[in-house]
Amino acid sequence: MAPEGKLDFLFNPRSIAVVGATDSKGKLASIIMESLGNAGFKGKIYPVNPKHSEVRGMPCFPDIKAIGEAVDLAVIAVSSSTAVEVIRGAAGFLKGAIVIGGGFSETGFNGAALEAELKEISNKSGVRIIGPNCMGIFDTISGVDTFFIPRERAKRPGLGRVSVLSQSGSFALIAMEEFASEGIGVARVVSYGNKADVDEADCLDFLAEDSSTGAALLYIEGISDGRKFVESAARCAKKKPVIALKAGRYGAGGGAARSHTGAMAGRYELYRAAFKKAGVIEISGYEEFIDAGRVFSRFPGAGGKRVAIITDGGGIGVSMADECAAHGLIVAQLSDEKVEKLKKTFPSYFTVSNPFDLTGSATDESYGDALTETLGGDDFDIAIVAALWGPPALTDALPARLAEIAKNSGKPVIICSPGGEYAKAKKRLFEEFGLPVFSTPEGAVRAAAALSKSKV
Amino acid sequence: MAPEGKLDFLFNPRSIAVVGATDSKGKLASIIMESLGNAGFKGKIYPVNPKHSEVRGMPCFPDIKAIGEAVDLAVIAVSSSTAVEVIRGAAGFLKGAIVIGGGFSETGFNGAALEAELKEISNKSGVRIIGPNCMGIFDTISGVDTFFIPRERAKRPGLGRVSVLSQSGSFALIAMEEFASEGIGVARVVSYGNKADVDEADCLDFLAEDSSTGAALLYIEGISDGRKFVESAARCAKKKPVIALKAGRYGAGGGAARSHTGAMAGRYELYRAAFKKAGVIEISGYEEFIDAGRVFSRFPGAGGKRVAIITDGGGIGVSMADECAAHGLIVAQLSDEKVEKLKKTFPSYFTVSNPFDLTGSATDESYGDALTETLGGDDFDIAIVAALWGPPALTDALPARLAEIAKNSGKPVIICSPGGEYAKAKKRLFEEFGLPVFSTPEGAVRAAAALSKSKV
Repeated sequence: MAPEGKLDFLFNPRSIAVVGATDSKGKLASIIMESLGNAGFKGKIYPVNPKHSEVRGMPCFPDIKAIGEAVDLAVIAVSSSTAVEVIRGAAGFLKGAIVIGGGFSETGFNGAALEAELKEISNKSGVRIIGPNCMGIFDTISGVDTFFIPRERAKRPGLGRVSVLSQSGSFALIAMEEFASEGIGVARVVSYGNKADVDEADCLDFLAEDSSTGAALLYIEGISDGRKFVESAARCAKKKPVIALKAGRYGAGGGAARSHTGAMAGRYELYRAAFKKAGVIEISGYEEFIDAGRVFSRFPGAGGKRVAIITDGGGIGVSMADECAAHGLIVAQLSDEKVEKLKKTFPSYFTVSNPFDLTGSATDESYGDALTETLGGDDFDIAIVAALWGPPALTDALPARLAEIAKNSGKPVIICSPGGEYAKAKKRLFEEFGLPVFSTPEGAVRAAAALSKSKV
Repeated sequence: MAPEGKLDFLFNPRSIAVVGATDSKGKLASIIMESLGNAGFKGKIYPVNPKHSEVRGMPCFPDIKAIGEAVDLAVIAVSSSTAVEVIRGAAGFLKGAIVIGGGFSETGFNGAALEAELKEISNKSGVRIIGPNCMGIFDTISGVDTFFIPRERAKRPGLGRVSVLSQSGSFALIAMEEFASEGIGVARVVSYGNKADVDEADCLDFLAEDSSTGAALLYIEGISDGRKFVESAARCAKKKPVIALKAGRYGAGGGAARSHTGAMAGRYELYRAAFKKAGVIEISGYEEFIDAGRVFSRFPGAGGKRVAIITDGGGIGVSMADECAAHGLIVAQLSDEKVEKLKKTFPSYFTVSNPFDLTGSATDESYGDALTETLGGDDFDIAIVAALWGPPALTDALPARLAEIAKNSGKPVIICSPGGEYAKAKKRLFEEFGLPVFSTPEGAVRAAAALSKSKV
């Protein structure tokens, strides 16, 4: 279990009240009740709705006070004005709330007034609020799941080491689905929306102390308190990698971010400076977000920027070298000494260079030897292995062999396995042995670039 | 059928001699014999090998002359020195040859001498040669398939409108596999390797006149005759989009390209200038190569750079707008007039802007209305629709509705469908109706950017 942090009652609640609970299928609160069951939440669940006396066979309470004992977390799935009243009425009986509905500052003047009210109630009562206009929390450790899209439409990822903080609910949901379908696990996921109270900095404070979290991955549209963010991010980044995507970087995107969660997108340059100051690894776009989720699930970082590329397909090797150069990675050349040694080991048609091209004559053994030689000593910090499955001598024993060498070296090894169904089937073999697999040369290099920026 | 072009005997041969033919399983010539059958080649096949009198139940000839009639194409799968002798001996009986084996200029001095000899024989005898050190031709029109990786390891794509020219065999093979697994078809694929004779310019001359080819997609490491390339590419680009990836752009990559196919990678800036002059659309990397294959299978180009983004997930909309800005696309704002009109049509919580955010309340109808309104008039050149499947009101009728509107508008509509299994299952619906589907916001935008650069 995670040590008690300031927001532990949000991530590991002992009890959850679902406000707006109903048996009416398809309603948000109904989906959430079901999700909590599916996610394996072990605490108490209290349905709350003045219109019902029973929901899903459980007694339903007219309001939170009526539950008769303090509740850790209320998930509030009612209209915006009712949500404000519910939290006001529950003050003293409630530690935290997730307000999932919209109708607040993202909709204009009236909504902004309601959100200000929510903020004031939180300040006065001490009830910590996630949202409004969010999807809340999905947590593989505690089994909390307030993402109100049913599982048949959006599969949930399994247990993993990366925690996700996202201002956008849809972005978080889509990333979760992608992680689920790619076999990438997560620890905690928070969609915090308009952040009337709890913001990314508060969540980072929790994640910094959370032993279940190995890396924090953020989707940010706008930050309102820059100093607070930098302090929290820097504290967290000292302990584990903090990776952030700033969306709304440019004119048009900035406009979209503004209307989307009611945040001023702010000037991109300020964000870059803040990330740099805090030791946050900046990434760009959805693809890099997924790449980062995949690679930081396996490795905390790399010791530097020197990349060894090993492949049996020259064109893919060249493409990776190009991409490395574009990302500031160094495709370092082998020392003359090592070249001499390797030329003796390998047949003449192998290209002993970087990229290291084993050609269509590649074998499991030659891959193993090339990886051992490049990772040994202090020539390289990361290896990318693109084993295309054309060469007939390659077998299903290759992944275990490479994983063993990777493990012994203590350095990150990234697999690139582009192509069709045959390559996709082989991907799993590498993943079973703990090596992250990317489907494109660019994905593998983006991951290496992110790793190389980690200070952990 | 394609009209007769200069190299028609290579792409649409009436007869093929397979030199090195054998029944010994796993040998290159054996795989090629099988591939020709699988690809549906309808012409005559002549096994050639002095060691056998029969191969696959067919009479086997000791050499090409012994066949007794002129052969359109010889596929030569023997050692490098033997290959040279075979072509020398067949002069006068042979129009074209594919030399698939390596051991030529990519291996050093002796190989380079053999390649020079090959070149001389070609010049003197008029035998046109593809290769050496290549995988040759895969052609869905004629059924030629000399890619010597068996189908259980590398599926072949179906019939399509994009033709691929690649200096790297492994790159071509991996792209073909990816196309096959993604349902993207191809017309002609050529891996031309060291190009002792036939080069990308010769192939472009053929593709320019080829009615089966709607777009030409090139992977280039180095071009030796820049003027010839620019002339051919410009001629082709006037008729159909020509899209090119220059690999080996940077230092390290440049080195890899050099040793890989024996070509001097040359300075990247010269290539950029040549592409620009010829009207070639430049792309970067494997991902953009696949994206281009997908989008140019459906559309020849767009009228300009103004992109409308329609989504039900704000965060994905913001991400796409960012990516558009990064690629020089214009996320143009709606006219005040149109905003007024649309605000009357749509509920207040829809964001009438660009990106156009239909939110979780999106319906098939609202998607249709938004697309109709944005594509109508002259405000936009391309639409990207990212329909995330969270909103419960979206149905399987959405793809047909959007496809109909796209068709009537005459403008390209690109679908972005990121996420997991649910989204992947829905992808097919769009594709059935002829709309290209991308799995990431970046992919969709890269495709839009490539389309916007087409002059066709």
